[in-house]
Amino acid sequence: MHASDRLLAAIDRIGAPVCVGLDPVVERLPTAVGSGIAPIERIERYCSDLLDALSGTVPCVKPQSACFERFGHQGVAVLERIVARSRALGLEVVLDAKRGDIGISAEHYAEAAFGHAAAADWITVNGYLGEDGIRPFLRPERGAFVLVRTSNPGGDALQQEALADGRTIAQAMADLVATIGAGRIGQRGYSDLGAVVGATKRQDAVELRRRMPQQILLVPGYGAQGGSLDDALVCFNRDGQGAIVTASRSVIYAFERDDPRWQDAVHAAAAAFRDEVGGAVSRPCG
Amino acid sequence: MHASDRLLAAIDRIGAPVCVGLDPVVERLPTAVGSGIAPIERIERYCSDLLDALSGTVPCVKPQSACFERFGHQGVAVLERIVARSRALGLEVVLDAKRGDIGISAEHYAEAAFGHAAAADWITVNGYLGEDGIRPFLRPERGAFVLVRTSNPGGDALQQEALADGRTIAQAMADLVATIGAGRIGQRGYSDLGAVVGATKRQDAVELRRRMPQQILLVPGYGAQGGSLDDALVCFNRDGQGAIVTASRSVIYAFERDDPRWQDAVHAAAAAFRDEVGGAVSRPCG
Repeated sequence: MHASDRLLAAIDRIGAPVCVGLDPVVERLPTAVGSGIAPIERIERYCSDLLDALSGTVPCVKPQSACFERFGHQGVAVLERIVARSRALGLEVVLDAKRGDIGISAEHYAEAAFGHAAAADWITVNGYLGEDGIRPFLRPERGAFVLVRTSNPGGDALQQEALADGRTIAQAMADLVATIGAGRIGQRGYSDLGAVVGATKRQDAVELRRRMPQQILLVPGYGAQGGSLDDALVCFNRDGQGAIVTASRSVIYAFERDDPRWQDAVHAAAAAFRDEVGGAVSRPCG
Repeated sequence: MHASDRLLAAIDRIGAPVCVGLDPVVERLPTAVGSGIAPIERIERYCSDLLDALSGTVPCVKPQSACFERFGHQGVAVLERIVARSRALGLEVVLDAKRGDIGISAEHYAEAAFGHAAAADWITVNGYLGEDGIRPFLRPERGAFVLVRTSNPGGDALQQEALADGRTIAQAMADLVATIGAGRIGQRGYSDLGAVVGATKRQDAVELRRRMPQQILLVPGYGAQGGSLDDALVCFNRDGQGAIVTASRSVIYAFERDDPRWQDAVHAAAAAFRDEVGGAVSRPCG
């Protein structure tokens, strides 16, 4: 089964194209989670409880690899278990690792992400190395989201540079993604090669959507990062498909730290996120 | 101490600006190394023996993170021990991880690479996210090499795109690196922010060298990847400094697989690599 078809089916089951980012930092964990144990153990318990609160409410989670890697191999072991648990709960998993290399090294990274039974479904990839840095991640039944446009100030500066042919660097990356992804289109018309589009300016997103009609766009920045729902909506195709909106801190930290029922607060925030985005994309587009 | 000063001092002690890439793959290991044990254990033993063969002969090693990550958290644990052992042997360590993220995630990656006593000295970074994706890696006494120009075919296609202002994308990245790196110049005039320049066309490298006069250029591709010494030499400044040439497969697999004295062959290949590059850069430049 194509990764794109599986992700779109998961979105249909929940009724909303949303993804919750798992970006655990120990300073923000609920006090109810494991006082007196090591930070990485607290993170594992928190993430495991988070998944219980999210399962059945959102179709997809996106663990941030860096949050786990900072604890060395023990953190990576926790990440492996959290990915496996996410999949066991029926969640699609986008491993936000932003990997990028070429040749055998890229194959190794793909193997790390996808090479075992309980591995991730998707990975985020940095495409600066070009086509041969992207293709190794297109394994059967797995997919990748290539960083096309990031919404940080530094991303603006570089990715919006104008090329001689009138495109921006981000648009050139978008065209590369569309070209490579055309070879991996699922039953529903979308590619297993998607793109990260964190556009802060609406016109940017409209243009990138136009250049990548068959890509699923992973749209970060909703909620705590200040992106608005209207900005995210322009990333969808006119059929209400083709994008998935991510939120992280606004959902996973939607509690008072000393609230023993913090999972209920997370569940409520996830449901509100699902309903807001799901309701908006189900309305006919102008 | 600035990372740049420490690396240049290590180069001076050995007398040659060379770095050996540690890219272990189990299919190419000497048969003498641990038959009957798990692949990742064989890789650990091989890398440990490799370091014995390289220590005192080259100033610097560059472990390829992907080769270890493909074995999951157990591979990452081995990588941690190999990095620690490299440093204990007096080798400068460039962690070839090609990380890139922003904000707190980039801080996490920097923490993973640098945040403990036996951590790497340098890391390779993908700069597509721009300035705020690069700065978090500039920790005290540590440095980063930003991917500016890679020599793979796909790298050519994207990085050589012409901007409206006449630069290529790679040159725009070079200018960004030079600007950011200007704030971190060591006693010897070089920055703790270097650049990866795998130029296959000599004129590319000359131009990138000109745009980044204070960057140490990490120049891959020598040996098995087909780069010539002449191509690498144009990456040096006229004082014979400012670059470090890397070789991997031509050194670390310089043996017949069933040779029980494979370490001697690796040592000889490393010494030849050191002498060839060291001899060439010590000659007055035209």
